[in-house]
Amino acid sequence: MSVTDQAVRARAAARVLARVPRAAKDAGLHAMADALAKAETAVLEANAVDVARAEENGTSAALVDRLRLTSDRVAGMVQGLREVAGLPDPVGDVVRGWTNANGVQVRQVRVPFGVVGIIYEARPNVTADAAGICLKSGNAALLRGSSSAADSNTAVVAALRDGVEHADLPADAVQLVGGPREVTTELMGARGLVDVLIPRGGAGLIDTVVRHSQVPVIETGVGNCHLYVDASADRETALDILLNAKTQRPSVCNAVETLLVHADAAATFLPAALSALAKAGVTVHGDPHTAAYADVIPAAEADFAEEYLSLDLAVAVVDDLDAALAHIRRFGTGHSETIVTESQRAAQRFTVEVDAAAVLVNTSSRFVDGGEFGFGAEIGISTQKLHARGPMGLPEMTSTKYVVVGSGQVR
Amino acid sequence: MSVTDQAVRARAAARVLARVPRAAKDAGLHAMADALAKAETAVLEANAVDVARAEENGTSAALVDRLRLTSDRVAGMVQGLREVAGLPDPVGDVVRGWTNANGVQVRQVRVPFGVVGIIYEARPNVTADAAGICLKSGNAALLRGSSSAADSNTAVVAALRDGVEHADLPADAVQLVGGPREVTTELMGARGLVDVLIPRGGAGLIDTVVRHSQVPVIETGVGNCHLYVDASADRETALDILLNAKTQRPSVCNAVETLLVHADAAATFLPAALSALAKAGVTVHGDPHTAAYADVIPAAEADFAEEYLSLDLAVAVVDDLDAALAHIRRFGTGHSETIVTESQRAAQRFTVEVDAAAVLVNTSSRFVDGGEFGFGAEIGISTQKLHARGPMGLPEMTSTKYVVVGSGQVR
Repeated sequence: MSVTDQAVRARAAARVLARVPRAAKDAGLHAMADALAKAETAVLEANAVDVARAEENGTSAALVDRLRLTSDRVAGMVQGLREVAGLPDPVGDVVRGWTNANGVQVRQVRVPFGVVGIIYEARPNVTADAAGICLKSGNAALLRGSSSAADSNTAVVAALRDGVEHADLPADAVQLVGGPREVTTELMGARGLVDVLIPRGGAGLIDTVVRHSQVPVIETGVGNCHLYVDASADRETALDILLNAKTQRPSVCNAVETLLVHADAAATFLPAALSALAKAGVTVHGDPHTAAYADVIPAAEADFAEEYLSLDLAVAVVDDLDAALAHIRRFGTGHSETIVTESQRAAQRFTVEVDAAAVLVNTSSRFVDGGEFGFGAEIGISTQKLHARGPMGLPEMTSTKYVVVGSGQVR
Repeated sequence: MSVTDQAVRARAAARVLARVPRAAKDAGLHAMADALAKAETAVLEANAVDVARAEENGTSAALVDRLRLTSDRVAGMVQGLREVAGLPDPVGDVVRGWTNANGVQVRQVRVPFGVVGIIYEARPNVTADAAGICLKSGNAALLRGSSSAADSNTAVVAALRDGVEHADLPADAVQLVGGPREVTTELMGARGLVDVLIPRGGAGLIDTVVRHSQVPVIETGVGNCHLYVDASADRETALDILLNAKTQRPSVCNAVETLLVHADAAATFLPAALSALAKAGVTVHGDPHTAAYADVIPAAEADFAEEYLSLDLAVAVVDDLDAALAHIRRFGTGHSETIVTESQRAAQRFTVEVDAAAVLVNTSSRFVDGGEFGFGAEIGISTQKLHARGPMGLPEMTSTKYVVVGSGQVR
């Protein structure tokens, strides 16, 4: 079946989803969870095929680990679907409303997008997560996973569709988009049939989708995040936050990649910080000022542009807040930027002047996360400015519609 | 100067605009108004050159009229700028906020997009309107007007920039993007430098921008709007709304283009309706059922797809509400769709099932308008689902940012 045919079926399914009440969607999610749990053996067998193929192809151990499903991971996907069922339904929420002077009533109401395409890389658990979030928000999902996870995704989607049908909802609400590379191009060209595309993955994938899609795109997640230690920073607070933001989970987009230290704080902060980083296994790529305090790898300009996603950190000493702001402006990706300071004035300038999805004062950028924000489910973290910026929960998976009710008024 | 150079200057100006308070922006808007009023003679002289050129090129009288400025129209532009100064500033509005269990405070705050590109057709008054709305919402404007209005736009922008500078704001907050057709392509490719593109104009312009832009786009305005007269409709209400929505201002996107009549209402509604339409100078393109009640031009399928923007109306008799919904699904452009009905059940089905920016019950689609909604200023009516849908006021010209404040919390 072509992508166009799949999208046409998805639209028909989306029309049904748009008008069923929350209870029907929640029943669908629980049925999806039940079906996935029942299909565990089939899913693990299919995943073993993907893993064997990846290992034959010499895929790195880290990537194979992301691809691998276990009984626990399948249980996590099942649990995720049940948790989404427990979240409030954004569809039908009245965002605002008023009555015009002539008595015409206006309400702005949340409605589903319709058909959402998700283009993502190896992790097969995204398949269930994305399908669940789309169904709950009333959207039909076209899931374009990577070929390396093709067998796993096929097995997962077969189970999910069984569940959807079992709950008397249209199975075409959840579809896997298979096939060669050109299929992605077709999906990106399906304007009018697909309402939104969300790429989830590395910078290369996201860039390709943003550049070539005629369907509106929500960009997610590249995070070259900075931590700026101001002259007035409490040194202990700064060190706690630095270690947390760098080492608690270095592979995620809200981890810190560059430390900027005010020149007046360098002598009192850097020696302890560099020693603590070394103890935590962090490799420091430092500018010449930093090198004065410890043995570090000299930082090239490319280090400041890099999203390491590993236990590496670029470090630079800056003259003042303005220099820190200029550095972030130049190298930041607009994700999450942090200042540690005791100065109210510096905090205010930083939060107003830094152009990013999230700006933080005296706390860890690891908190910029749908779960930590209490959203319950997260489809990704948007680093663009249209529609949604920052962690995206269920309401961000909807559009709105004005409902205008009168009693014969004309203009 | 290349578009890239202009965009770089616009970004620098946008950084200033993002942090100045409302009072400074309002002073800027009044200074722009003063400067434009002072430049009236120069603007009218420049406009005369555009008008003469258009007439030489055999441009239609309607288009020449849209291009022509008069003393009154310049006064309207000046007044428009002053009115925008009087509107609330969306920047800094806290959309929502909460405190996490660990004491970390989260606020979602409105911030400007940054640099907004507006691509528009002949009307030179859009130049002042768009510049005013952008400045008030803290955005630098790159104004890409049509070559037919080049002299007028140059004169208007020169005056506006004088005003901006006079108010100690950066003149590069308002820039005209001149030059050949390729310049538009360059603007559409300026991803990372331009934050949002808004095309304002005909379907062809909008389609080109949506297809080719790598910068995120907000689509505006094509409206193939339907009025559905249900079996239960109050006939007098239906007639009032029909005449208002078709004839009060036929050239705008929220005017009705197609009338759909329930078969059970045809005999009691269509004779009077067709006669009233004829009296109002409306040319009816009717299906065979309609032709039974009056002499009409036979409607081809293309008539139902057409946004006439004139005193023309396509008319069809449909079997029931389902057939009306199917017709709208097939031909609608997702702008404004109206039902006239006394049935609560039909009204509810229509408002839930029609996928459009606005759905109306028993009132005229002419009310779907930023001014009528009380927004005070309108940059256009979005017919897309991302970010903004329906009339766009000042808040729709902003993004948001999460401000996260702690006292040393880590994860």
